[in-house]
Amino acid sequence: MAKPIPAFGLAFLLALASAPAFADGVPAQLQQSGMNLMPWPAHVQLHGGRLALTPQFDIAVTGDSGQRVYDAATRLLQHLQRRSGIEFDQHAVTANSGSARAALVIHVHRPGVLKIGEDESYSLHVDPGHAVLTAEDGLGALHGLQTLRQLLQSDSNGYGFPAVDIRDQPRFEWRGLMIDVARHFEPVEVIERNIRGMAAVKLNVLHLHLSDNQGFRIQSKVFPELTELGSNGQYYTQTQIRHIIRYADDRGVIVVPEFDLPAHAVSWLVSHPELASAPGPYHLYTRFGGENPAFDPSNPDTYRFLGRFFKEMAGLFPAPYIHIGGDENSGRQWTNNPAIQAYMQPAITSNDALQTRFIQQLAAMITADGKQIIGWDEILQPGLEKGAIIQSWRGKDSLYQAAREGHRAILSNGYYLDLLYPASDAYLNDPIPPGTRLARSVRRNILGGEAEMWSELVRPETIDSRIWPTAAAVAERLWSPQEVRDVPWMYKRLRSVNLQLEELGLTQIRNQGVLLRQLTGRHDIEPLRVLLDVISPVRGYQRMATGHYTIHSPLASITDAATANPWAAIQFNERVDRFVKHPDAGAEQQIRAQLEQWIANDPALEALIEPATALHPVKPLAQSLVTLSKIGLQALDYIDRKQPAPQAWARQTTTDFLQAREPAAATKLRMVDAVEKLVVMALKGDGSSGSDLSRGEVQGDR
Amino acid sequence: MAKPIPAFGLAFLLALASAPAFADGVPAQLQQSGMNLMPWPAHVQLHGGRLALTPQFDIAVTGDSGQRVYDAATRLLQHLQRRSGIEFDQHAVTANSGSARAALVIHVHRPGVLKIGEDESYSLHVDPGHAVLTAEDGLGALHGLQTLRQLLQSDSNGYGFPAVDIRDQPRFEWRGLMIDVARHFEPVEVIERNIRGMAAVKLNVLHLHLSDNQGFRIQSKVFPELTELGSNGQYYTQTQIRHIIRYADDRGVIVVPEFDLPAHAVSWLVSHPELASAPGPYHLYTRFGGENPAFDPSNPDTYRFLGRFFKEMAGLFPAPYIHIGGDENSGRQWTNNPAIQAYMQPAITSNDALQTRFIQQLAAMITADGKQIIGWDEILQPGLEKGAIIQSWRGKDSLYQAAREGHRAILSNGYYLDLLYPASDAYLNDPIPPGTRLARSVRRNILGGEAEMWSELVRPETIDSRIWPTAAAVAERLWSPQEVRDVPWMYKRLRSVNLQLEELGLTQIRNQGVLLRQLTGRHDIEPLRVLLDVISPVRGYQRMATGHYTIHSPLASITDAATANPWAAIQFNERVDRFVKHPDAGAEQQIRAQLEQWIANDPALEALIEPATALHPVKPLAQSLVTLSKIGLQALDYIDRKQPAPQAWARQTTTDFLQAREPAAATKLRMVDAVEKLVVMALKGDGSSGSDLSRGEVQGDR
Repeated sequence: MAKPIPAFGLAFLLALASAPAFADGVPAQLQQSGMNLMPWPAHVQLHGGRLALTPQFDIAVTGDSGQRVYDAATRLLQHLQRRSGIEFDQHAVTANSGSARAALVIHVHRPGVLKIGEDESYSLHVDPGHAVLTAEDGLGALHGLQTLRQLLQSDSNGYGFPAVDIRDQPRFEWRGLMIDVARHFEPVEVIERNIRGMAAVKLNVLHLHLSDNQGFRIQSKVFPELTELGSNGQYYTQTQIRHIIRYADDRGVIVVPEFDLPAHAVSWLVSHPELASAPGPYHLYTRFGGENPAFDPSNPDTYRFLGRFFKEMAGLFPAPYIHIGGDENSGRQWTNNPAIQAYMQPAITSNDALQTRFIQQLAAMITADGKQIIGWDEILQPGLEKGAIIQSWRGKDSLYQAAREGHRAILSNGYYLDLLYPASDAYLNDPIPPGTRLARSVRRNILGGEAEMWSELVRPETIDSRIWPTAAAVAERLWSPQEVRDVPWMYKRLRSVNLQLEELGLTQIRNQGVLLRQLTGRHDIEPLRVLLDVISPVRGYQRMATGHYTIHSPLASITDAATANPWAAIQFNERVDRFVKHPDAGAEQQIRAQLEQWIANDPALEALIEPATALHPVKPLAQSLVTLSKIGLQALDYIDRKQPAPQAWARQTTTDFLQAREPAAATKLRMVDAVEKLVVMALKGDGSSGSDLSRGEVQGDR
Repeated sequence: MAKPIPAFGLAFLLALASAPAFADGVPAQLQQSGMNLMPWPAHVQLHGGRLALTPQFDIAVTGDSGQRVYDAATRLLQHLQRRSGIEFDQHAVTANSGSARAALVIHVHRPGVLKIGEDESYSLHVDPGHAVLTAEDGLGALHGLQTLRQLLQSDSNGYGFPAVDIRDQPRFEWRGLMIDVARHFEPVEVIERNIRGMAAVKLNVLHLHLSDNQGFRIQSKVFPELTELGSNGQYYTQTQIRHIIRYADDRGVIVVPEFDLPAHAVSWLVSHPELASAPGPYHLYTRFGGENPAFDPSNPDTYRFLGRFFKEMAGLFPAPYIHIGGDENSGRQWTNNPAIQAYMQPAITSNDALQTRFIQQLAAMITADGKQIIGWDEILQPGLEKGAIIQSWRGKDSLYQAAREGHRAILSNGYYLDLLYPASDAYLNDPIPPGTRLARSVRRNILGGEAEMWSELVRPETIDSRIWPTAAAVAERLWSPQEVRDVPWMYKRLRSVNLQLEELGLTQIRNQGVLLRQLTGRHDIEPLRVLLDVISPVRGYQRMATGHYTIHSPLASITDAATANPWAAIQFNERVDRFVKHPDAGAEQQIRAQLEQWIANDPALEALIEPATALHPVKPLAQSLVTLSKIGLQALDYIDRKQPAPQAWARQTTTDFLQAREPAAATKLRMVDAVEKLVVMALKGDGSSGSDLSRGEVQGDR
C-alpha cells in the first residue's frame, strides 16, 4: 500500500524504520511503560513527556473521512470526559470542527469500505503539544482512536497521553466474535455493548448464530411462521437487525448471519415439518445436545423454501457472506428415511456426499444472490465450490487443508469462550504458529480467527463475563505481531483493558457483584469475592456433562459468578513461578501476605456462606483455600531455614492436595499447583529468602 | 367489596379480624421478624414455621385472572429460581398449569382494569404446606405476588416463605413515579427496568415528562419535524412507546404522558417558531434554567396545531389522562409581545388569566379526545374545569386548595428524588399527615402522590441510583397505613429491598462500583467505597446552583457515585442516637469498631485518591472522616471515665467540626452530627460504658 506521507510524519516514520525488530518480543522498556494497549500495536516507540488533557482538548478531522470517524471521535470525547471528569469545550466532532491546531488532528484520505481486506492501518503520533492520527481510510482511523483511548493515563498531576509514535496494522484480516443467540436469546442491548467491546479491541466481524434447535431468532417477512412458531417470542425483528447492522457498521464491524443447515434444524422444522427428514411434529428443544434433526435434501420443496428464505436474508444483510452452518449432521435421519435412500441411488454413495450435494445446491442459490457461503469444517468435502470459506472448529488440520485446497479459512478451534479456559490458552493459540511451513499462497488463504460464544450456559446477565476479557486476548493474537506472546505481560494489560471495557457498558465486572449479592442476600460480599478471585469454573464440557441443564436453568450459581481468569490466582501463580526461579525476600513477602490474607478472610467467608444454602456446595473450596494457604506458609518457613523439609510433612499434605484439586460447585481452586511448587521447593531445601534478585537461576546453583 | 371467601381462607380471615389495630405502628414482634416487606402491608399476622422452597414448587391459577397474572407468576418462578439456585419442574404458569394442590394457588375473580381506583387488594396465606393468594382482580394478584417475592428468606436449612397471613390494600390510589426524559433522554431499557422496580414496590403510575427546552422525546407521525429538528435524534418511536405502554400494562403500571405547555416549549418551537410568543429561531437548550419560551396563545394556529397533536397522542396512549404541564410560565414573552397584549384586551386582565384561557382551550380539545388533563399547580386558577387534576409541586397548600375546589389532586412536593434528600424525608412526607382536618369529600379528592425524577444531572448509568431506593420509601408512604412510620425500621427494610430491586436489573448498586473503578482506574475500590458509604451529594439545588452544568457534562464524578442514603452513616447515626439515650457496652463497642474502621481505612483510601486527580476534590472529606473518628474515640474514652470531658478539649475540636461540615466535591460527610453528640455526651460526663440495657433513659438518671 502506497500512502502519501504527511509532512509532520516523515521524521517519526524514519525513526520507526530504525526501531529494533520484534524477534524477541516487545522490549522490556515498553512492557514496563504502563501503556496498557491491547492489541499491542505493530510498532511502538515511546518518548518522554505527555500531552495533557485539558478542557481545551479538541479534535479536528481533515480529508474525506466519512461519518464513522466523526462519530467515533465524538464518542472518544465522551469517554475521555467521563474518565477524567473534565468537561471539554468541544462536545461533538463534525466536518468543520476544530482547526489545524487542534489537540488531536485526524488525517484520513477516504471513508473506506467495510469489508475483509480493507486497509486498516493507522499511524499515531503524540507529543506534548499535540497528537496526530493518520490513516488511509476511516476504518484505520477508528482503530487509531481506540488506541488513543487506551493510552489515557492518570497520575497525581492529571490526565494525559504519553508521547509516543505508533505505526499499526493487523496481522490477520478476519478477527471475529461469534455469539450464539439461538440457545439463549440475547436482547439488542447485549449485542450493542458487545459490538462496542469488539471495536475497542479491533475485532471486525460479528457472527450471529441465528438458528438452532432451541430457537429461530430473526424475523422473516416471507416466512413469518419461522419465528411465530419457532422462537418462543424471542427474536430480532428486521427493524432491530437493521439497527444492529448499522450500529456495527458505524463502529467498523461486519455482521455475518449464520443459519445452521442441514442439521441443528429443529426451529425451522417446528413450522415446516414437511421439509424434515423424519416425520414431525417438531418442538423446540429445551435441552442441549441430542439428535440434530435435518432438512430433507431429497425434497425439491426444501430448495424452493431455502431459496426464497436466503434471497430475503441476502437483501437484509449487506455483508457478502452468509454462514450456512453445515456442522454435526449425524446422517441418521437420512439413513432411516427410505425416500432419501432411494433418492441417493445410484450416484450419491454416502451421507457426506449427500450433504455436499445439499451444500452445493444451497451455495449455488446463495451465490446467485451475490453472497459467498461460509460453513463449519464438515462442509469441506470434494466438490465444494472454491469460493466457500471454511471455519475450522475441530482443529488446525482442517484449517490448513482448506487453505491448501484453495479455500479461504478461519480458525475457531481453541477460541471457544464458553469452555472457560484461561485467556492465556486462547492467547497462545496462533492460527499460524512460529515455524509453521505453509506456502505463501496457502498462508494467504488463512483469513484469521474467531472467538466463539456458545450460549447453552449463559444468559444476558452473564454472557459478557464469558466473552470478556478473554476475547481481548484473542483479538491481540489476531491483530498483533506473532512475537507478542508474553503471558504475564498480556495478563497485566488484560486486567487494565478489562476495566476500560467496563466504561463501554460491558457488564462482566459489575454483574459478578450482582450475582454474589443475590446469592448471599447481603450488601457486603467482599469475603466471597476474595474466594471468587481464586477459583474458576470447571473447563471444557464438564459442566454441561452433568446433563441436567435446560434453557430454563437459573444459571445464577457460584460458577456463573466465577470467571475463567481469576486475577488473584493468576497473580499468585506468576509470583510463585518467579520466586521458585529467583527466590528473594520481597517476592516471599508478597506470597506470604497473599496466603495470610486468604487465611484471615476465612471466618467472614464462612459466615457469608452458612446462611445461604445455594453457596454450601462451595464450602470445600473455601476450606481447601485455608488448608493450602497454611501449607504454603509452612513450606516458606522450611525454605527460610534453608534445610530440606521432612518428607513426612510433605506426605501429610497429600490428602489436602487431592482434596483441593476436586471440583466443587462446578468450580475449581486455581492456586493449588503454585502451593505444590512451594512444597517441592521446600523439600529440595534450595530456598533462600535472603537472596537478592541478581542471584540467578536456582536450578543453576545446584 | 363483597368477595366470596374460599373455604380454606375463612379461618385466617377471622383470625385477622381479631388482630390488634395499628394505632401505635407495627408491633415489635413483626419489626423483628426479618420480613423485609416494603410497602408494609395493611395487616400482617406472623405464624410459626415456613413453606420450604423445593424443585417441586409450583403455581396454579383459578378464576378469570387474565394474562397479567400468568406472566407475573412465571416471572416469580424465575426470580425465586435465580435467588435460590433451585430449578423448578414448572417453568411457566398458564391457565392450565398446576393443580388445586399446587404449592401456591392463586384465586382471582376477574382480570381487572388498569385504571386509578381499581380494586388492588389481595390476601395472602402461607402455611408450611402451601400458600394461597386471593384477589378480586388481577391487579391485586400482581401486588400479592410481589409481596410473596419479598417474603422469600434463606437460612442454613434452605429457602422458604414464613407462615403468615396478610390482608392488604393501598391507602392511596395514585402512586406515581415521574421520569423526565427530556433533559437527559433515557433509552427504553432504562424505562423498562424502572417499570419493573415500580411494580416491585406497588407503584402504579409512570409519568413521562416527554418535552422540555432540551428536547422533544416522542415521535409524532403528524408532525415528524418535532423530533427531526427538536430531539438531537434521541426520542421514542411510536413503536417503542407502544412497547413501553404494553410493558407497563403487563406489570400493572399506567403510563401518563406529559407535554409541557405553554412554557418550557423550546423543543416544540425549534420546528414551529411561527407558534412562539417571541421571534425565533429557537435552538434546543444545552443548559438548564433560564427563560422558558412559550406558545403564542393569541394565534389560532397554536390551537389548530395542538389540537391535531393531542388527537394523535390521545390515540397512542390508552390512559385517560394527558398531562399538559402548565408550570413556570413567567409571562415575560407575553408581556413583551404587542399582538398578544392586544389580543388580551379587554377581557383578559393578566398573564395568569391568559394562561388559564389557554389551558381551558387545550382542556376542551383534550376532553373532546376522551382524556382528562393533569397540570402542575400553576394551572389551578379560577375557571379551570373541574375534571382537571392538579399535581402540587410547590407545597401542600395547593394540594388541599385544589381538593377543596373539587379537583382531584396529587402531591409531588417533598418527593423530588433529584434533590437527593435522604429517604426518611420523603418517607415522613405524608400527603395527609396525622391530625389533618379535611372534610371527607375533600380528602377523597387527594388521589396520592408522585416521586419526581428530574434529569438535569443524571444519565442512563446514574439515574437508577437517584430513583432507588428512595422511591420505595415513597411507595410505602403512599401504600401503607399512616401509622407505619418508624424510620430506623424503614431503613432496615429499605436496605434489603434495595438488594431485591437489583435482581430486577436496576443498576443503583452495581453502577456505583463502575464509576469508582473508572475514577480510580483500579479494580480494588473497597477503600473508596468505605468513604462513599458515609458521604452523600449536597442536597436541594446546591449542585445545580454552580451553574456550569450542560447536557454534555460528564456526570461521572464522586458526587455522581454518591447516594442520598449512605448506609454506614445512617447506621452509625442510629447507633449513636440509641447509645446517647441508652449507653451500653455493646453499643459502644459497635461505635468504636466503626470509628476504628474509618481510621484504618484511611491509608489505602489516600493511596487510591492520590493518583486520580478527578478524586482530589474529595480529599478534605477523607481527612475529616479520620479527624472526626479520632474525636469520636476520644469522646468515648471520656465517657468511659464517667467524668465530664474538659471544655478546652471540646473547644479544640470546633475547627475540625466546621471543616467536616464543609461540602467538598459536591458531597458532604453525613456522620458529623453523630460525633458531635458523642462530644456533647462526653462533656456532660453522663456516659457509662458498663451500664446494661435495662438501665433506662440516661436523661432520667440525672
